[in-house]
Amino acid sequence: MTQSSEQSMRERRAVCLLSGGLDSSTCLAVAQREGFACYALSFDYGQRHRRELEAAARVAAAMGAVRHVTLPLDLRAFGGSALTDEIAVPKHDRVEQIESGIPVTYVPARNTIFLSCALGWAEVLGAFDIYLGVNAIDYSGYPDCRPDFVRAFEQTANLATAAGVEGRGRFRIHTPLIDLSKAGIVQLAASLGVDFGLTHSCYDPLPDGRPCGRCDSCLLRRKGFAEAGVVDPLEYAA
Amino acid sequence: MTQSSEQSMRERRAVCLLSGGLDSSTCLAVAQREGFACYALSFDYGQRHRRELEAAARVAAAMGAVRHVTLPLDLRAFGGSALTDEIAVPKHDRVEQIESGIPVTYVPARNTIFLSCALGWAEVLGAFDIYLGVNAIDYSGYPDCRPDFVRAFEQTANLATAAGVEGRGRFRIHTPLIDLSKAGIVQLAASLGVDFGLTHSCYDPLPDGRPCGRCDSCLLRRKGFAEAGVVDPLEYAA
Repeated sequence: MTQSSEQSMRERRAVCLLSGGLDSSTCLAVAQREGFACYALSFDYGQRHRRELEAAARVAAAMGAVRHVTLPLDLRAFGGSALTDEIAVPKHDRVEQIESGIPVTYVPARNTIFLSCALGWAEVLGAFDIYLGVNAIDYSGYPDCRPDFVRAFEQTANLATAAGVEGRGRFRIHTPLIDLSKAGIVQLAASLGVDFGLTHSCYDPLPDGRPCGRCDSCLLRRKGFAEAGVVDPLEYAA
Repeated sequence: MTQSSEQSMRERRAVCLLSGGLDSSTCLAVAQREGFACYALSFDYGQRHRRELEAAARVAAAMGAVRHVTLPLDLRAFGGSALTDEIAVPKHDRVEQIESGIPVTYVPARNTIFLSCALGWAEVLGAFDIYLGVNAIDYSGYPDCRPDFVRAFEQTANLATAAGVEGRGRFRIHTPLIDLSKAGIVQLAASLGVDFGLTHSCYDPLPDGRPCGRCDSCLLRRKGFAEAGVVDPLEYAA
């Protein structure tokens, strides 16, 4: 507990980064279970899969977030990722075919940018807790999903802000999924009552909204559900 | 020099955060003098003084920035600062009347957010150098203008990015003004040929664009010019 006793008498607030995918939705459910009044934050960063933002709004509403803000932040001004640019999203038939290393879907500095904005909102709200649904096990290709990065950002946050410098509290970046396998995340989500049908994970959905089933994100999700022995209610195109 | 020899054979690029004020304009001039091809980055963050963005565009063009991007990022979604919200900007007659401590014009996590976006652009550009015109001497009230914060962010940047993690280079946040007085900044700017008439520092300009002359930023600027013995070409309202 990093909250002061005075603050814990009031509503305990947390900012929860929410993409609308399985991981961030599960992370929001964890924050709710831990007793936080949750302020969900999504970004309209020019992602090619707009379904993600619709999913985020559905999940935030279904889970009882106090407020959900979708911040427009057009990272296409910089280019450089298959998620925001004209680079093709890689497709595979099996999860084993996913290339190791940093994937082309990597968006430069994305989690740093998202956490920075979450930090700004947290300070305005008087919150010191930020939830981020990163996972370093099944998808360790992204540098900004690793514990070293999260700890470094946390240290920066406490030096960057009036609230941190004045000692009103200590910012904490919660990453409850970071050591879980995708199957473990599915099991945790199921135990918390996450409505899987509301979530969206695909990097490249069909025009009718169905997930492609063959991008890295779909493959890892399907593998996670299979290993967890849980039925994924989404209807995949392939 | 953190550039690899291969990269130094090519164009050396830097991302320069540019508000259009005296400090960031001087910082851009320093980056140019140091031989960087400069990519200037401004933010339309809902600041009440739109003149700032016009000044940034003028300064970037006049100084020969390779490119100038103004990224819309509406921090009014969070509220919490006199620069973005309905809180009044404090006015004084003399610089000695400026309150100590963190001013109401503090925008929560602003420099963290700005540096994060600069980092994303830098990675796309293959740049490892980011210029930030913060100053810890004459205006130490902002926590995110201090050396401790800058070093912490730099460390985070090198853990956050593919370029940093893969060892392609080491990100460096340059803060050439951090130890200068405002008078020292004016002298440096004059020596670099900064066109002071293009810059804009006021937090609360008049409808006709003239700086108010009585906000903290105007008072510190005027004191800096006076102490440097340089004429400020701006026409102040008061």
